[in-house]
Amino acid sequence: MFTVNRFVKNIFLSIGCLVIFQSFGQQSGRKLTSYVNPFIGTGPVSSSLSGNNFPGATVPFGMVQLSPDTKDAPDWSAASGYDHNDSTIVGFSHTHLSGTGVAELFDVLMMPATGDIKTRAGNPSQPGSGYRSRFSHQQETAKPGYYSVFLLDHKTNVELTATEHAGFHRYTFPKDSKAHVVIDLDHSLKKPDWNCRIVNAQFRLVNNHAIEGYRMITGWAKFRKVYFYIEFSKPIKAHDFVDGGAEYFNQPLINGTDLRAILDFDTADTPALLAKVGLSAVSIANAKANLQSEIPAWDFDNKIQEAEAKWEAELQKIKVEGTEERKQIFYTSLYHALLQPNNIADVSGDYMAADYTIKNAEDKAHYSTFSLWDTYRGAHPLYTLIQRERSGKFVNSMIRQYETYGYLPVWQLWGQENYCMIGNHAIPVIVDAVLKGIPGFDIQKAYEAVKNSSLTDHLNSPFSIWEQYGYMPENKQSQSVSITLEMAYDDWCVAQFARKIGNTADYERFIKRSRYYKNLYDEKMGFFRAKDDMGKWMEPFSPLKYGANGGNPFTEGNAWQYFWYVPHDIYDLISLVGGDNAFTDKLDTFFTLDARPDEVNGNASGFIGQYAHGNEPSHHVTYLYNYAGQPWKTQYYVSRVLNDLYNTSFSGYAGNDDCGEMSAWYVFSAMGFYPVNPASGVYVIGSPALEHVSVKLAEGKTFGIKAVNASAKNIYIQSARLNGRPYTRTYITQSDIEAGGKLELVMGAKPNKNWGKAKADRPSANSFGVRTGHLTINRNE
Amino acid sequence: MFTVNRFVKNIFLSIGCLVIFQSFGQQSGRKLTSYVNPFIGTGPVSSSLSGNNFPGATVPFGMVQLSPDTKDAPDWSAASGYDHNDSTIVGFSHTHLSGTGVAELFDVLMMPATGDIKTRAGNPSQPGSGYRSRFSHQQETAKPGYYSVFLLDHKTNVELTATEHAGFHRYTFPKDSKAHVVIDLDHSLKKPDWNCRIVNAQFRLVNNHAIEGYRMITGWAKFRKVYFYIEFSKPIKAHDFVDGGAEYFNQPLINGTDLRAILDFDTADTPALLAKVGLSAVSIANAKANLQSEIPAWDFDNKIQEAEAKWEAELQKIKVEGTEERKQIFYTSLYHALLQPNNIADVSGDYMAADYTIKNAEDKAHYSTFSLWDTYRGAHPLYTLIQRERSGKFVNSMIRQYETYGYLPVWQLWGQENYCMIGNHAIPVIVDAVLKGIPGFDIQKAYEAVKNSSLTDHLNSPFSIWEQYGYMPENKQSQSVSITLEMAYDDWCVAQFARKIGNTADYERFIKRSRYYKNLYDEKMGFFRAKDDMGKWMEPFSPLKYGANGGNPFTEGNAWQYFWYVPHDIYDLISLVGGDNAFTDKLDTFFTLDARPDEVNGNASGFIGQYAHGNEPSHHVTYLYNYAGQPWKTQYYVSRVLNDLYNTSFSGYAGNDDCGEMSAWYVFSAMGFYPVNPASGVYVIGSPALEHVSVKLAEGKTFGIKAVNASAKNIYIQSARLNGRPYTRTYITQSDIEAGGKLELVMGAKPNKNWGKAKADRPSANSFGVRTGHLTINRNE
Repeated sequence: MFTVNRFVKNIFLSIGCLVIFQSFGQQSGRKLTSYVNPFIGTGPVSSSLSGNNFPGATVPFGMVQLSPDTKDAPDWSAASGYDHNDSTIVGFSHTHLSGTGVAELFDVLMMPATGDIKTRAGNPSQPGSGYRSRFSHQQETAKPGYYSVFLLDHKTNVELTATEHAGFHRYTFPKDSKAHVVIDLDHSLKKPDWNCRIVNAQFRLVNNHAIEGYRMITGWAKFRKVYFYIEFSKPIKAHDFVDGGAEYFNQPLINGTDLRAILDFDTADTPALLAKVGLSAVSIANAKANLQSEIPAWDFDNKIQEAEAKWEAELQKIKVEGTEERKQIFYTSLYHALLQPNNIADVSGDYMAADYTIKNAEDKAHYSTFSLWDTYRGAHPLYTLIQRERSGKFVNSMIRQYETYGYLPVWQLWGQENYCMIGNHAIPVIVDAVLKGIPGFDIQKAYEAVKNSSLTDHLNSPFSIWEQYGYMPENKQSQSVSITLEMAYDDWCVAQFARKIGNTADYERFIKRSRYYKNLYDEKMGFFRAKDDMGKWMEPFSPLKYGANGGNPFTEGNAWQYFWYVPHDIYDLISLVGGDNAFTDKLDTFFTLDARPDEVNGNASGFIGQYAHGNEPSHHVTYLYNYAGQPWKTQYYVSRVLNDLYNTSFSGYAGNDDCGEMSAWYVFSAMGFYPVNPASGVYVIGSPALEHVSVKLAEGKTFGIKAVNASAKNIYIQSARLNGRPYTRTYITQSDIEAGGKLELVMGAKPNKNWGKAKADRPSANSFGVRTGHLTINRNE
Repeated sequence: MFTVNRFVKNIFLSIGCLVIFQSFGQQSGRKLTSYVNPFIGTGPVSSSLSGNNFPGATVPFGMVQLSPDTKDAPDWSAASGYDHNDSTIVGFSHTHLSGTGVAELFDVLMMPATGDIKTRAGNPSQPGSGYRSRFSHQQETAKPGYYSVFLLDHKTNVELTATEHAGFHRYTFPKDSKAHVVIDLDHSLKKPDWNCRIVNAQFRLVNNHAIEGYRMITGWAKFRKVYFYIEFSKPIKAHDFVDGGAEYFNQPLINGTDLRAILDFDTADTPALLAKVGLSAVSIANAKANLQSEIPAWDFDNKIQEAEAKWEAELQKIKVEGTEERKQIFYTSLYHALLQPNNIADVSGDYMAADYTIKNAEDKAHYSTFSLWDTYRGAHPLYTLIQRERSGKFVNSMIRQYETYGYLPVWQLWGQENYCMIGNHAIPVIVDAVLKGIPGFDIQKAYEAVKNSSLTDHLNSPFSIWEQYGYMPENKQSQSVSITLEMAYDDWCVAQFARKIGNTADYERFIKRSRYYKNLYDEKMGFFRAKDDMGKWMEPFSPLKYGANGGNPFTEGNAWQYFWYVPHDIYDLISLVGGDNAFTDKLDTFFTLDARPDEVNGNASGFIGQYAHGNEPSHHVTYLYNYAGQPWKTQYYVSRVLNDLYNTSFSGYAGNDDCGEMSAWYVFSAMGFYPVNPASGVYVIGSPALEHVSVKLAEGKTFGIKAVNASAKNIYIQSARLNGRPYTRTYITQSDIEAGGKLELVMGAKPNKNWGKAKADRPSANSFGVRTGHLTINRNE
């Protein structure tokens, strides 16, 4: 990570001098999509973590992400299938995850190729041999909804665009070439990681312009059905089906587990070949219907425009001013945040439920790709702000898992639970949506789902043990400290929902559970640490020692990083540690203690002392100084993260983007605030990176943030006004935003240590419900 | 196998003296089900092959086979899950295969238990520990539709019955015991054989009388969805869900991959606990609907009667007289033959198609478990005789695979193709049904399916290579000799269908292919043997050398056993080998050559010389003497097989029953004839083991066979009459049977070498289509 940090700093310093200030609204003619650089996050530098983003074509929240794969068998290190450091491409598959730490999807890989590839294609040990091609970033472009690259070995230009359920390809072959299109149904995450295996697959030639089929695959998602229907603009002259080492020429269909098709086309008349590819998780018929509904004609350029227009409409929801670099990072982050969750329902509303039956969603959407351990922190609060309608559908989709699966998603992929990470963070997402009045779902059903998901024991969530011991004993449940802290937070959310609907008994039960974290606080060491089921501290203990995903009390982090995870109860945490000074001292140490044990977990990266911005447990910590009267230090560290740990290069993230969570942090923090407790309606003010922000809200309202005198050096808030009136609070609330209006922050190069210092100005623990005060009364509830 | 043979002989000799002759109709008061002994075939002696039958409760062609499992993780050696040699039972699961050489199914295992089993049940390394129980065959009974056993360790009596889609359990616990029922969703074939893995499973407590759930499993069947709904007659007092090593007490549900439930019941009031279990391959709702439709009440005894009545109705279709032993073998064989194919559609007609979508069968049945390499020989001809309506539905079900999968089943299990064995023997089954006028399916669709299944290359069926070389070159397609012979036969069947519908071009194409077998006949060696793609004989060659399932020109056999596999062209085979004498000499050698190479394939067993009755390639060979003028030798060897290689013991079969094929051979041969070419409508006469047979046909007709003077010694036909007129032909035809009437065979202890010797009396090659003669004109067509 140090290499990244140094690299990032250098980039920033060299670009810094080019910063051009622009006033708000001047660039109304320029599309916001032009600020999006889909290559950001697509590769690491040296051995650091990549954002694991993909550069390909997609529309907001779509099922299809049509993107180049440089890897034959992607693993965690290039989980999007594409690594910007690679120099060859094996093909373009239709589904990708953005920023995950596990590789998955990569369905229906297609690759145009020229020359004599048939015999080589039959070699199962080298799936790309014969068609893998070199490419150059000089001949590669991408914008929202569009990607193109020139394949050097095939002298063929590839252009890609997408609709919600379909991919659209335009290949420009050299004239009179032996033109082929390879379709690979075996292309997947690295086998047998996650027990990945193709259960069955099929190609069927429908006519000389169309081919259809499916693959059934188990992997990180336990079982996925992927049906496709492909139409070509030219006749298929001949075709070759390959199953592993066996080749079948001009057969009407093939079934198998290691399938590729090589289709031959004549390019003598026109060099361009177009292909339209409809996908469905339900049936071939639905894949065809999806395609016919979304791409009825061969109007490739229109579809590029439509895709870009969809992105433009979403990006317009937040207009910002700032440096070119910051606008690039901001809009690329916003773009990355809006790639998922993905609608896996067909245009008809048909979808595969968690119990493997086919159901129909009345609202024509069933969203999945819920990377909740990451996205509940910042991405979902962002969705409730600018994706109110979809947020209601996200809740409906999660409730559908509850209905068949018995509890809400932990990490849901293509409608299947994979239990990745810990906690039950669909709960804060739903509670936040309820408290913010998001429409479109059944409140009573939502409460039933939230409550039962907090009572029904499941993997990493043994609630019986939780209520028996008042903490997770490490010898009964590993990752016990991290789970204890995160579960306590989820329970606080349940309690808020119970209070909202007037269920006092449930409120009492869950608010009690929300304080269980205290049972793992070791006053002597000043850290949360593990106990066994006899109540004894587990030895040895080092606050620097890392855990990964089991076998240790901490999850992808150490006791330093997890110390701060009491987002609902920061004031009690301050009390635990001994008051404001002790708390800020501890924060100071946290941000400066450089010690790294050998076993630093691979997911921790983007370090400032022990702070690891590359992974989510740290994400709220820069904002905690506000709770103890030193908001200028929040401003300092937030600014450092914004400036040092994000850039416009392909390695622009300090860690995996995690389905847009790293991006959502930037979107919020660059605007000037962040939801430390994502279900509280409280946004803690940091240090804005943008000069002007305007957030489009419901009912035609807007909320504006202006950072007067903001510059690379002027990172400190000197004073503030809300709607023209002097403002000393170090936070704003959901109702402040919903009311519309404007927050004005006057920035300067030196800290104003008095602004926001007073107790009354410190963040409210909760802006929802009975508001009897900002600090003492409400802070636990 | 020698041990088996000796054992079998001893049993026969000791029982032989007890034989009691009974005249036809005398025992009208005795149910035919009473002759069925479900324990026949349930275990091997010493290291020989077992029939691999199961003793449990089922109804004809039902989805549910509720039967005890003595194995935790069954493999090929006890593929039904039960081995009669075992002394303990681990539980009773709801689905079983009868007689396969691969283990599969075993869904939703239930086991009553007493005592303190909870903590032990949590040990994943010993799934049965704590509830596996000793049992004694003295306290175990079975009849069609009913099974019971006393569990010694739990002092609990278990009784089982079944409907088409549901199992019904009655457990009689000791009074005031700690009574439990264990349900195991991880019980399966031995993992990771066939990549077997539970993808996901669920238990959900519906109320205090019901539990529901599912398991998704990959294994020999590529992917199966098994949903269940269970109701108990008593309240569930407490329950414990176990996922591998983790236990969850009194939770509403659990999801996982290694799931067991332990339910507690109170037996203080009444000792009997009843459980009704509905299954579905579509959804929990359908499982519940199936259960409610078939077992609405708690009338266990009624359901036993209903199940037995269903069996009685099926068995009544063939009434026989003979010794008690032979009637036991006959009716048990008939019972085993009617266990499958199994209807995997729900009562609503919903089923999962081969493309993993849910469809609805208008005829409310979708049959699967098509062990076609075995069953096309004798079982399906038996079904066309006494299961005309179901035979039409079998065809419809197979055509459904063609529609989604592109070709007809090779070996279909729970609706999924597994490509077990070679050939495409759905073709003879369908062609036989067409030529016999079986109603209920679309002839044109059937022809399309048959033809395309003979032209679309697939695993072990590369038809392009077939037509290119005129044989299978071993270096292009292993098992080449066996495939060449079997494919030629399937092609002959296609040709007959083409002729039937007047498609001359197709007839010529396929009749030409049906003669390709000649291209692998080595005149010098007198055997069919492998060539490479240059047309060179592959060396070395030994007619004794065995192949298994790949890597050798022969499939589960050797060149001796496959020499005879030209069922459509026996007279040309006789010509190839040099005429009648050469042919019968070769047969004589075949039946007496005892040489066994070390590598005898495990599937070959039940030897008489090189003849291996334990596996299907030999099944027609005893009947071939009739084609060369020595029917008395057919009578001798058929009689030997009937007497020496079947008995009423638990090891009553000489090899795996293979979904009723070994049984169907007995049913036909004991009646006195066998379909050497199963799609010719020609039944070749052997040596009846029964004194009197009456087959119930359509439209109230019956066909009778009387064996006058038949006894253990009187195995030779002295003379015959058909419908009272002297009959010298050594075969009868489908039209002879369909016309009704009676075949009378006068038996004696010495061969009448003149009966059936004349050329004109030798079997017709084909009784369907243009009948211009019995021998020369029609023999290839």
